[in-house]
Amino acid sequence: MQFRSDNAGPAHPKVLEAMVAANTGYAPGYGADALMDGVTAQLRALFEAPEAAVYLVATGTAANALALATLCQPWQTVFCARVAHVQEDECNAPEFFSGGAKLTLVGEADKFSAAELRAAMEAEEIRGVHGAQRGPVTVTQSTELGRLYTLDELAAISEVAHGFGQPVYMDGARFSNAVAALGCTPAEMTWRAGVDAVSFGGTKNGCVGVEAVIFFDPAKAWEFELRRKRGAHLFSKHRYLSAQMAAYLEEALWLENARAANAGCARLAEGLSGVEGVAFLHAPEANALFAEMPREMHRRLMEAGAAYNLWGASPAAVRDEGGPLLARFVCDWALPEAEIDRFVEIARG
Amino acid sequence: MQFRSDNAGPAHPKVLEAMVAANTGYAPGYGADALMDGVTAQLRALFEAPEAAVYLVATGTAANALALATLCQPWQTVFCARVAHVQEDECNAPEFFSGGAKLTLVGEADKFSAAELRAAMEAEEIRGVHGAQRGPVTVTQSTELGRLYTLDELAAISEVAHGFGQPVYMDGARFSNAVAALGCTPAEMTWRAGVDAVSFGGTKNGCVGVEAVIFFDPAKAWEFELRRKRGAHLFSKHRYLSAQMAAYLEEALWLENARAANAGCARLAEGLSGVEGVAFLHAPEANALFAEMPREMHRRLMEAGAAYNLWGASPAAVRDEGGPLLARFVCDWALPEAEIDRFVEIARG
Amino acid sequence: MQFRSDNAGPAHPKVLEAMVAANTGYAPGYGADALMDGVTAQLRALFEAPEAAVYLVATGTAANALALATLCQPWQTVFCARVAHVQEDECNAPEFFSGGAKLTLVGEADKFSAAELRAAMEAEEIRGVHGAQRGPVTVTQSTELGRLYTLDELAAISEVAHGFGQPVYMDGARFSNAVAALGCTPAEMTWRAGVDAVSFGGTKNGCVGVEAVIFFDPAKAWEFELRRKRGAHLFSKHRYLSAQMAAYLEEALWLENARAANAGCARLAEGLSGVEGVAFLHAPEANALFAEMPREMHRRLMEAGAAYNLWGASPAAVRDEGGPLLARFVCDWALPEAEIDRFVEIARG
Amino acid sequence: MQFRSDNAGPAHPKVLEAMVAANTGYAPGYGADALMDGVTAQLRALFEAPEAAVYLVATGTAANALALATLCQPWQTVFCARVAHVQEDECNAPEFFSGGAKLTLVGEADKFSAAELRAAMEAEEIRGVHGAQRGPVTVTQSTELGRLYTLDELAAISEVAHGFGQPVYMDGARFSNAVAALGCTPAEMTWRAGVDAVSFGGTKNGCVGVEAVIFFDPAKAWEFELRRKRGAHLFSKHRYLSAQMAAYLEEALWLENARAANAGCARLAEGLSGVEGVAFLHAPEANALFAEMPREMHRRLMEAGAAYNLWGASPAAVRDEGGPLLARFVCDWALPEAEIDRFVEIARG
Repeated sequence: MQFRSDNAGPAHPKVLEAMVAANTGYAPGYGADALMDGVTAQLRALFEAPEAAVYLVATGTAANALALATLCQPWQTVFCARVAHVQEDECNAPEFFSGGAKLTLVGEADKFSAAELRAAMEAEEIRGVHGAQRGPVTVTQSTELGRLYTLDELAAISEVAHGFGQPVYMDGARFSNAVAALGCTPAEMTWRAGVDAVSFGGTKNGCVGVEAVIFFDPAKAWEFELRRKRGAHLFSKHRYLSAQMAAYLEEALWLENARAANAGCARLAEGLSGVEGVAFLHAPEANALFAEMPREMHRRLMEAGAAYNLWGASPAAVRDEGGPLLARFVCDWALPEAEIDRFVEIARG
Repeated sequence: MQFRSDNAGPAHPKVLEAMVAANTGYAPGYGADALMDGVTAQLRALFEAPEAAVYLVATGTAANALALATLCQPWQTVFCARVAHVQEDECNAPEFFSGGAKLTLVGEADKFSAAELRAAMEAEEIRGVHGAQRGPVTVTQSTELGRLYTLDELAAISEVAHGFGQPVYMDGARFSNAVAALGCTPAEMTWRAGVDAVSFGGTKNGCVGVEAVIFFDPAKAWEFELRRKRGAHLFSKHRYLSAQMAAYLEEALWLENARAANAGCARLAEGLSGVEGVAFLHAPEANALFAEMPREMHRRLMEAGAAYNLWGASPAAVRDEGGPLLARFVCDWALPEAEIDRFVEIARG
Repeated sequence: MQFRSDNAGPAHPKVLEAMVAANTGYAPGYGADALMDGVTAQLRALFEAPEAAVYLVATGTAANALALATLCQPWQTVFCARVAHVQEDECNAPEFFSGGAKLTLVGEADKFSAAELRAAMEAEEIRGVHGAQRGPVTVTQSTELGRLYTLDELAAISEVAHGFGQPVYMDGARFSNAVAALGCTPAEMTWRAGVDAVSFGGTKNGCVGVEAVIFFDPAKAWEFELRRKRGAHLFSKHRYLSAQMAAYLEEALWLENARAANAGCARLAEGLSGVEGVAFLHAPEANALFAEMPREMHRRLMEAGAAYNLWGASPAAVRDEGGPLLARFVCDWALPEAEIDRFVEIARG
Repeated sequence: MQFRSDNAGPAHPKVLEAMVAANTGYAPGYGADALMDGVTAQLRALFEAPEAAVYLVATGTAANALALATLCQPWQTVFCARVAHVQEDECNAPEFFSGGAKLTLVGEADKFSAAELRAAMEAEEIRGVHGAQRGPVTVTQSTELGRLYTLDELAAISEVAHGFGQPVYMDGARFSNAVAALGCTPAEMTWRAGVDAVSFGGTKNGCVGVEAVIFFDPAKAWEFELRRKRGAHLFSKHRYLSAQMAAYLEEALWLENARAANAGCARLAEGLSGVEGVAFLHAPEANALFAEMPREMHRRLMEAGAAYNLWGASPAAVRDEGGPLLARFVCDWALPEAEIDRFVEIARG
């Protein structure tokens, strides 16, 4: 009953098999391995972007921080959602990698509308040289609260950003879950909707540790390479990153895994739906469910071995008296249906 | 009718006289001038802080950014008000000088309460190594909206900050206006209320360009000196900063100027009070008044030569149709009463 | 005939087997995996340092840059050899991670003496606040030119550094090769010789991508953790780093691999010794040989498929007329003896 | 007998008179004062550069650090002389403002030749993404050791830099002394010789604290403005910087002062020439003389009140036994001839 995070589960066996298969003979380092050529070609094909610049890094924070720094100037501010990973979970990595840019929080939680973005972008820079200057816009898809931007919402956001001359970066740590849920193509969810750069996350969806960063306009490709090296994120034995990504792309493992994770979350939501005392923050749209539950139910689940995180409260809170507590339940590709069902059963009491 | 800013007016003649008087013979550079010894002694006496480390810089942003960077780590977040100068008017200087720290906005506008601060500080760091770590707290006194923290409010805020092991820095660009308004001593408004470091602003109150930065605990004095030099804010011909500050301290010119500025603002507020269509954002407490006025009144005033800034709107807005517009009126020490009275008269129509 | 780098070869099969073995079930992320507990215990035992703080990162540059930044202040200068990896091969990562520290180059090439260090450290800081301040000292062991510091040399260097109140960091990307060559213990080559922190490299010696960073004094452990996270070097699926390091430590695979690499290099040197036209830069002491060869010999070797790097010249230089060219030959653990012998044979002509 | 530095002496009375004259009424802040319009026009005329972007800052380190940061990327290295002010006297300000660029030291001391520069620039970047990338070139004119680049030398250096696609920045803290000595025009010593940006120093030559930064190509003007603000170097009461510079430009006060300083230095050199035991490091070319003197002579001079700095030795060294000690003697515009003559007399013994 493991709902703590989609990075707590195992990698898909095919990913490790690919790493083992790559472990033969000598190969040029630092991204010049032959496997990477294939990965680049595959990702360009998948995104229908034959000119795109494609790079691999090993962590989602590296992908976000390096991509944003490449799109940003130190005197600018990045527009992001209030609970964006870049704001809450990266220990100031965006500020560090950008050389001191600011983050401006838009909207109320994990999503913002084009109108909210416009208002925020208009509010900046009326102070001329004194205020932070407008910088890139970043959205997370699927969001930190398990929701989705529709293609129309993305296009509207991009239009606002571009109207101010600023690019859009998509934090795609759970990109695959979003594509699976929306039933669209990667191209539709990115450049066709105005997204300028995206991370295509592997780590949370069955890889060991790999994220692709894709710039649809390759103008800043060399700058990104220098930033990656300077950030110590260029792997000497790069072939093991390439091998992971190659396996992940092979026969659309990325999509298969994402569908499994989303299906698990839907099963969980269906199971909990209508259970006395359980209230969803909102209907889950990808692979994460946020639900309030009575403390007694939390205690029962945790005692039975369920693993998940409370949201905005410390774990100890379940032992205190009080009202219901919000929790996050993330389903990964490997989660057995039986575990989900057992969880629901225990919740039902 | 100059209400644009308290840095648009002239310096007090005594300040320039002191600079001229200092302009004789050779003097050691970089803060080793004899005048600075006197300034240090005077400021320690004024603040009743015989151990304090005292430094001069030439801009308020330098004072804020260097002081906060000295009190902060790059992985921390600084707690400040939503419209704090460090957030809105320094083009990311705090992020730059701190090496990438974040700013967390507390409260609704220019002030925050101890309770709001506690909530904000509690919310940080529940994410362990993932989130920004708690850093220093900064308050502006008097505030960017012309209000004051009471001594009790300051003490309560300091107590919260210290409870989390964090220091309090006071942006004292308008320190003198606050002391004049509260009728307290500099010590009461700083270390006796738990403030750990403060800028004692001269530029906005009759100097050419000088701010003192005071650390009541001198433990980080040498670090500050290195940061000042590395930030290119150590003046070779430092004596001209010292001379300004010496003149500013002499016979409490700082207090005399601040009282004049505050009195001007009170006169303005009294004059505008009850004028049809004029609504104060709040009663002015120092030397800045924020008031909504009908656009027609703005047009009349501006045509007559009144200079001031709209707040949250571009200057062109006065020419459009629409509701009243908020404006800021800042009074400096030099503003003639007759100019204030003329302004009021024109506003009355 | 692969002598390009010790990161061009494969990982040891046991390392990948360990990763596959770790790929089961759910595990806490971000370094809280059970495997890491074992790794910490094993490394503390290996280094006879029960209090040491132990962390894993995935690249050597990350190890160096994060460790130095932790030991350094932005206004300091790091003392390193002229061809140190931190100076030549990290695209300013030390400057980036430290927030702008400087590097002062000591000695003529890959090593410096205690006397040279003392002279360099004395030369700094006579300018008071104006110059860069003295910072940590870093040595690479084995060096970038395939040489070793003796234990006495290390102790003398540490004594100088400590005499100025500065710590010593050892870049141990090839730590194992040095221990194998010196026949000493890890403790003798580090803290017993005054080294304060060290990277224990796995990547160049049979791992996929893992380096341990060890602080013998754990006082800055938490700061390192924050820097690692902020630098995007904290792995969510950390267990795969732990698994690599566990396999590397198991039955001293690290030492076995290093001995194999060193033996290969000795075999190569012996084979080339006395070959007409071949001149060693110095006798190889670990797993890298630097030798000048006539251009004709280079062409012959390269045409036969030998892979290695010219040193200080572009690859195209072998096609031009001119004198002999210096090349670097690095042997890794996997290099077959037959390949070495074939190389020697071709060199002999 | 004040030879310590050209920033130890007084400002020219005209400069302070101009500040006093500017101290009347209200003026727009932050560089929008009317005086600055005149300064911009005058500097463009003086440099025969009608398109140039012109800014004022208050310290030489600010001018250097901001200009270089504007011309540089964080992953590049700046080429400078070994004893350049940016290397030795700015406490890592260039590294700080550039976000972590490196400095590569060229030549043996205060000057380097085009050939030395070419060798250094060729040596960089053969490592591709691994090494620091080539960045701007900076020369100091007159140099830190009181020498000059000829116009031909400057042109040759610029040609090398431009050949690598890199700009040239001239640290002109003593620009006026160089123009006075060379008898050329500002344009000849800058853009006509290929210099892309320059600081036109006022502080060391009779101002209170002001340096102009001039970009002959205004493409990066707005970036410089943002960097200046973010670096806390934009003065609110900017008119007092403008007033200084206006006075400095009026009737070529800058040139008159520089000629006086240079003449003082020539007089000093002539007086010391042939004095037993005095050996010049090289013939002085501007306003600074470097000479070795017996310790006994140093003691005699210092006891008589002469003020100057030993070079590469602590002040205490004069009291020890030993060989001659090198000292720096800087003459400023205000130094009375009688003081120089008295110094020479005492030196003669």
